[in-house]
Parts: sequence; structure tokens; C-alpha cells
Amino acid sequence: MPEPDVLEVHRAMREIANQILKVSNVLDGKQVDDFIQALLKAKRVFVIGAGRSGLVAKAFAMRLMHLGIDTYVIGETITPALREGDLFIAVSGSGETNLTVRAAEIAKKIGSKIVAITSYPNSSLGKIADYLVVLPGRVKTESTTDFVHRELAGEYASLAPLGTMFEITALVFLDGIVANLMTKLGKKEEDLRARHATIE
Amino acid sequence: MPEPDVLEVHRAMREIANQILKVSNVLDGKQVDDFIQALLKAKRVFVIGAGRSGLVAKAFAMRLMHLGIDTYVIGETITPALREGDLFIAVSGSGETNLTVRAAEIAKKIGSKIVAITSYPNSSLGKIADYLVVLPGRVKTESTTDFVHRELAGEYASLAPLGTMFEITALVFLDGIVANLMTKLGKKEEDLRARHATIE
Amino acid sequence: MPEPDVLEVHRAMREIANQILKVSNVLDGKQVDDFIQALLKAKRVFVIGAGRSGLVAKAFAMRLMHLGIDTYVIGETITPALREGDLFIAVSGSGETNLTVRAAEIAKKIGSKIVAITSYPNSSLGKIADYLVVLPGRVKTESTTDFVHRELAGEYASLAPLGTMFEITALVFLDGIVANLMTKLGKKEEDLRARHATIE
Amino acid sequence: MPEPDVLEVHRAMREIANQILKVSNVLDGKQVDDFIQALLKAKRVFVIGAGRSGLVAKAFAMRLMHLGIDTYVIGETITPALREGDLFIAVSGSGETNLTVRAAEIAKKIGSKIVAITSYPNSSLGKIADYLVVLPGRVKTESTTDFVHRELAGEYASLAPLGTMFEITALVFLDGIVANLMTKLGKKEEDLRARHATIE
Repeated sequence: MPEPDVLEVHRAMREIANQILKVSNVLDGKQVDDFIQALLKAKRVFVIGAGRSGLVAKAFAMRLMHLGIDTYVIGETITPALREGDLFIAVSGSGETNLTVRAAEIAKKIGSKIVAITSYPNSSLGKIADYLVVLPGRVKTESTTDFVHRELAGEYASLAPLGTMFEITALVFLDGIVANLMTKLGKKEEDLRARHATIE
Repeated sequence: MPEPDVLEVHRAMREIANQILKVSNVLDGKQVDDFIQALLKAKRVFVIGAGRSGLVAKAFAMRLMHLGIDTYVIGETITPALREGDLFIAVSGSGETNLTVRAAEIAKKIGSKIVAITSYPNSSLGKIADYLVVLPGRVKTESTTDFVHRELAGEYASLAPLGTMFEITALVFLDGIVANLMTKLGKKEEDLRARHATIE
Repeated sequence: MPEPDVLEVHRAMREIANQILKVSNVLDGKQVDDFIQALLKAKRVFVIGAGRSGLVAKAFAMRLMHLGIDTYVIGETITPALREGDLFIAVSGSGETNLTVRAAEIAKKIGSKIVAITSYPNSSLGKIADYLVVLPGRVKTESTTDFVHRELAGEYASLAPLGTMFEITALVFLDGIVANLMTKLGKKEEDLRARHATIE
Repeated sequence: MPEPDVLEVHRAMREIANQILKVSNVLDGKQVDDFIQALLKAKRVFVIGAGRSGLVAKAFAMRLMHLGIDTYVIGETITPALREGDLFIAVSGSGETNLTVRAAEIAKKIGSKIVAITSYPNSSLGKIADYLVVLPGRVKTESTTDFVHRELAGEYASLAPLGTMFEITALVFLDGIVANLMTKLGKKEEDLRARHATIE
């Protein structure tokens, strides 16, 4: 007889995997295309995000560095001045994360292009974005009742609390972008490994 | 006609979702059970990981904090002295990440219990672990030819380079653990939200 | 004959030491007293700062943790929700650092008490502070000509560029506060060592 | 009558300032010279340190970036693979900080040059260093009785506990190096400001 604990873990993992599949099916081709083009023509890339969305942004930044793209994380030690021509990528499920939105506003004023990875195109972040990638997914500020993407949500408040679904689908989506950039840039896994941190 | 870029992103996402499903099916019930019991009886939890595995460890630590469990990330500012009775969770696909293994050795000597989240039970990390959770998945130190879990791997070197598969399945697995802890601790999403950072 | 390089290093270090002495002589006794009282009666302490001021804030937070005071760094992984009764300490030479000021505004609204460690009492940060500690010192946003604390400044633009003087005097001042808290709390160095991180 | 609290803060600050002056007087000219030459000819610079020594390393790295030197912090997101020809700077008062020493050993094997900023030339870190800068100063692992630099120490266990003196003198020393590099590279404060982070 299988253990009840492992069954619940299994069920939560399956729920998340299904959400990734659903989101991958509703990606907007033009949004994805434009985002990839923006990445390819950016002089430098800066990423930002708060909490677990910030961890997702960092995971993406690390792979961009492996790909040889000049990338920085807002708030880390050696991040230089943002300038015109730089691409500023903000990850925020709600699109209303206070400091992330404020930073995007400053970036916009400086003249960099803004990418919003968010569930809400009409959020403060979504509205100032030059490039928008909408990933449907309940976010941590929603209660179950006001969830606008109900058909994708199910009853997962207890299986994937707060922003979990957005964070994971954002990570997986951005890793999909990495796969595409490898093709586009003609990079093999060995090329990435050669740039991977050696002290860890 | 659908855009080729979005198709490749879609394909990578589907590949990752399928890997999550596969890993969720081969979880070892006893390993999962023991890990959950160790979490529930730990005085405090300390997590560590390098690179993207470190980001996964942080994402888990944040949710443990939301659950009201006293949790710290090795290397962050206010992390206190580790002591006997603390649970030390190390995330490393290969189980050979140098500084992670060394830190686990120190933690072991101090008398804390070691959890290894890894693909390799016979790795340096796996061998000193008191609690082992094996998540099959190709890791960044493998070339395609020596991949021991071939049946779970497929041809994903270009769709999910380096440790991508391990990192994402580890994140999703640990979020499954969070779902289970919510049930066990009788926590609702509102309880987690109440502890979620308010300045961000 | 002494080496010219070491002489210039020596001269910069002496300049900084002299600035520390000058600032220590003009500390406002009531400001210092009130700050110490606020620290002693705070339920929890949260610190924030950007760039090198952020590193100074972290260095202080680490010692507060060593002293047994419940302390968190805004933006780190396990930082929980700020609440009423918490003390929010912001370090900013200019008092105008955008995201720091915005965070302080949110903290104020939540009902926590704000401490501003700054050179500018009339800055945005200074104005919303409940407790103000003014540390005279040229900050990075000033050019040499508009420097209002000229008598303390000298010609150090090339010996201590940007916010260097503020950052170092803030660090040393906060370490002076730590010395005083040790006395007040009856803590010996051994007590601090016992809480110092053991995995590093 | 002056407040007793501010007097103790004042006394601790004065003690620290005096220590900076003493250390600046005993700098080894050749060590300083060699370190500066190593910085000038390095392809890239990587820094590391644990705890407050790590914060000092980061503060230095930030200024090197402002100076236009390609600099990375071990453990941050976008830090690439260390290679031959890179300069690896480790900050550790005791020279025995476990993970710092281990990282330096790996860096040595890779073929990068090692700089040790330490109080102990005969420590594990000191011994493998290609460039050594000795900053006398009691460190956190010493009790008052075995302190070998007693003449520089005084009775400061309670005024500057644990590694405080080393950390601050290291920071001020490294800022002295920055002043010298500005001269050597013909950089003005405006040049540094132009590279200073704009989103914060």
C-alpha cells in the first residue's frame, strides 16, 4: 500500500506539471517571438524580481550568462549603471510588486526597454512594458474567489499556495526560451558548461 | 501557421513537464516519509545549494518560513550557528558540488542531521546523508553518453541543458513537500500569506 | 625610500580614520540615545540599504543577530512580513535612494518605526524617520562644489570617492552601537561567538 | 553633562579609527605594490569572503566595477567560470575560514593567482597565496590571551568584538587601494559615478 504522504506530494507535482503543459499551450506566439528578438538585440540584459519571482529571474540570468549574453541582476554587487539600449526584464506574477514596479519605472525613464513576465497584462508593470509575456496563473495576491483564470486554476490553493504556479511556470517558460536561444545562437551544452561557475 | 520559436519553447516546456511527471511516479515513499518526519521534528532548518540548486534551496526555505518553521539559508546575513538537533538540507544534483559537500561535512561533525536532495545516492553528499531523497535526472556534470538514467532522459541536452531537469524537478518536489506540510500542520494559504514579506 | 603606492594608500586610510574621529565628535547624544532605546525595545529589527550602504546595513544586522536580537535583512530569503512594533532601519547617505525610500514609506504605513541613518536630515528618508541619526559626510550624489559639510570634507573626492566616507563612518558608528548594546545587554564576546555562523 | 551612551559609542569609534591609523603605518610597501600590480594586470578579478569579511570583499568588488575592472563575486548569480589569468582575492582575518580556503585551493588548481587579505601569513590561506597582504588585527577566533598582535590590540574585546577590527581595517585598506587605482588609471570620481548602479 503506497504511503499517503508520498501520494499527496505526487498529486501536487502532477498538478504543477499539468499547469506547465496548459500554459505552454496558450503561449502567445507573437509575444514569445518579440521577447526572443529583444533578447538577441539587447546590448545587455538586467533582471529583477522579488521573493521567489526574484529567484526565477536569477535562474534565467545565470543561463543567459552561460549563453554568453552580458547579464546582470538588479541589487547584486557588480551590477553597473543601466543605460539606454539595455533590456530590463521584470518577473512579477501580479505585476504590482511595489519595488519591482518602481524599478521598472526608473528603467523606463533611463530609456531601456522593459519586458514584463506576468499573469496580468493590465497591471502597473504590464502597462509600462515594451514587451509583454503573459503567463496565466493564479498569483499570491488573489483569493480563490477572484481568480480570473479559473479554468486553469482548479482547486490548487492547498497544492500550490500563493504564487507557486506562476513562479514555476515562469521558470520553465524561461528555460524554454534558453533552449530556443541555444538553437538561435548555435550553442551546444558544452558551450554553456564552459562558462558555468567553477568555484561552488 | 504557428511560429517556430514558440513551438520550440513549447516543446522544451512539455519535455520538462513530462520529466516532472516521471519523477513524481518514481518517488521512494519511505524516503519522502522520512524527510517529512525529519522536517516536522527539526528544531531549525538550514538549507544550502550552489548555483541554480541554491536558488531552489532558497525557494523552499522561503515557504518553510511561510509555514512558521524556523529556517535559514547558509551564507545569508542573519544565519546563526548551526547546532545539534538542526536539520541541514543540501540540494545538489551530482552530489559532488565541492563547497556544498564540504559544508555538509562540517554540519555532520556539528551533529546536525543531513538531508541530501540529489540524483546520486552514492555521491559524496549521498553517502554522508542521514536522509536521502533521490530525484532521477541528468545533471550538469554528465555528458550525454554516461547518463545513467537514460530511460528518463531522452534527447534533452539541448532542450534542458546542464542541471535544468534536476533543478526544476527538485523545486517542484519540494513544493509538493510544502503542500503536504500544509496539510500536516493544518495551515491554510492565508496562514502562509500572513507571513509573506510585505516589503518588496 | 618608501614606495609611492603605499604612501597614497596610507594617506587615504589616514583621511578616512580622521573622518571617523571627526564624526564621532559631532554625534548628537540624544539621537544616539533614542536609537539605542528603540533597538532595545523593538520586537524585531529589519534593515535595508542599497549598494555599499546595504552592505553596511547587513554588517550591522549580523552583529544584532550575534547579540540575540531578532533581525532581518529586507530582500533576503527568509525575511518575514514586517509588522507594527518592528523597527525598520534604513541606511542611505543621501536619504534619497529611491527603492530604500519607497520601502521606508511602505514600512511606515505598516506601522513600524523608521530609523534613518543618513547625512541629510531633510531628505525624503530623514523626513519620514521616527528616529534620525545624522552622520555628516559627503555622499555620492554631491559634486565637490555643492558639498554642504565642507569643513568635514577636505579634498577627498579622489581619496574617498562617492559615498565612501559615509559608508565607512556609518559602519564604524553602528559598530559603536554594538559595543554599547553589549554593555547594556550584559553580553560578552563569548556570547556573540556562540551565535556566530559555524558553516562558512 | 554628556550622555554616557554616546560616550561609549564615541570611544569605540575612536578605538577603531586609531587601529586604522596603526595598521596604515605598518603596511608592507612591497606587499601593497605587488597587490596593485596584480590588480592592474589581471584579466578579471574574483573576490570571496565569508560573513562580514564577505561584505568587505563585496564593497571592494563594487568599486573595482566602478573603476571599469571586470570583477565578480564568488557565489553571485552571474559569476562565470574562473580561469587561468584571473585574480582570486580572498578576505579572511584568520586565514582559516573553511569554505574560503577550500575555494582558494580550487582557484589555485585552476591556475588563477591567489591574493590573501589576512592577519595571518602562516594560515592555510596565507600559505597558498601568490600575493599576501597582512593586516594586523585580532580576529574572531582568538581569545584575548593568545592574541599575537597584542601591541596593536589593547583591550578592545568589548569595544570591537570578534573580527570587527580586521573587517574594518580591511575595508579601509581596500578603499585606499581604490584611491591609488584611480590615480594609476587616471580615473576621476565622475568616471566612477557614471558606472554606479542607477536602479536602487
